[in-house]
Amino acid sequence: MEFHYPNGKKFSPKPAKSSAVKKEKSYSHGKRGMTLEDDLNETNDYYVHSGMAVIHKKPVPVQIVNVDYPKRSAAVIKEAYFKQASTTDYNGVYKGHYVDFEAKETRNRTSFPLQNFHQHQLDHMKQVTAQRGIAFVIIRFSLTEEIFLMPYVQLNNFWERMLKGGRKSMTKKEIEETSYSIPLGLHPRIDYLKIIDHLLK
Amino acid sequence: MEFHYPNGKKFSPKPAKSSAVKKEKSYSHGKRGMTLEDDLNETNDYYVHSGMAVIHKKPVPVQIVNVDYPKRSAAVIKEAYFKQASTTDYNGVYKGHYVDFEAKETRNRTSFPLQNFHQHQLDHMKQVTAQRGIAFVIIRFSLTEEIFLMPYVQLNNFWERMLKGGRKSMTKKEIEETSYSIPLGLHPRIDYLKIIDHLLK
Repeated sequence: MEFHYPNGKKFSPKPAKSSAVKKEKSYSHGKRGMTLEDDLNETNDYYVHSGMAVIHKKPVPVQIVNVDYPKRSAAVIKEAYFKQASTTDYNGVYKGHYVDFEAKETRNRTSFPLQNFHQHQLDHMKQVTAQRGIAFVIIRFSLTEEIFLMPYVQLNNFWERMLKGGRKSMTKKEIEETSYSIPLGLHPRIDYLKIIDHLLK
Repeated sequence: MEFHYPNGKKFSPKPAKSSAVKKEKSYSHGKRGMTLEDDLNETNDYYVHSGMAVIHKKPVPVQIVNVDYPKRSAAVIKEAYFKQASTTDYNGVYKGHYVDFEAKETRNRTSFPLQNFHQHQLDHMKQVTAQRGIAFVIIRFSLTEEIFLMPYVQLNNFWERMLKGGRKSMTKKEIEETSYSIPLGLHPRIDYLKIIDHLLK
């Protein structure tokens, strides 16, 4: 058995000059090949630089075991392990509102597996909602590049159904009925603030 | 020259069962020996568990270069480097309000060095303030265990003074005049929400 990174994929370290690589990618293949995380990072950069919101992805949580301090150069982490995040990956502030979400994608075509989420993330989103924060998930069907924003309350209904022995995924139809579709744009790529504006009304 | 961890201290990995260690510490030596980070983590745990607020420390940002995927066991990060954080360390939600802060301590007795903060953190707090979030720093004089909450606007005044060629630290007296003292308690240890309540009035 191979241990995989929490999102089910092997971890592939990004080159330091990832922006250059990204640009090349986007020029040569259009929007294809970008991960949901890439698109959201670009979106959040756009929001910060245009003064619309301050929302960031949290660093990958790592349990550091051994660090080397060589003379005349930077400290090197020699042994560390991936930890499961205790919260969601993204949070920040938009017009005074606290925004908190998790983002996941699937290569399935007709349903979205709930195993992409974890009980403690649902617990966290519940706590956030109780504090009047805005909690949701952004999910993407990568093969068709369809993106949805599903509020926490809706996700929790499907989660509870699973805990009661029901299906372990949400069908595409269920998602369409309970979520907001976000069209893929150029700048920003995933304009989820528009949906939040709608939720705030 | 030795590279140090951003807070100026060598990185010392925490044992996995840190809660047990913490308890022992606190029984045998009272409140002494706890770092500001320990005290804030305990405070935030208290807030979350009592349903008062959802505020967490972000993971330490790390640039991962090399990961080993041994068969039948967890992925091991073999080479990684500390990255400078692009935001502050703590954020979350309290009664619908976005809360964002950095926490630093000094062993000085009469002044607090501004080198504990970075331009990009000031920039981040400015952006947060523009989005109507609540941004501040929590500073501690570790030798006397005095703790203060200084709002971003006040910190920025001292920062600007430094950029104009003024002193590179804030005197204790200046801090007392511009900040809110937080008495060290038992549960929670650093009850900063009380100050936020005051700021929100």
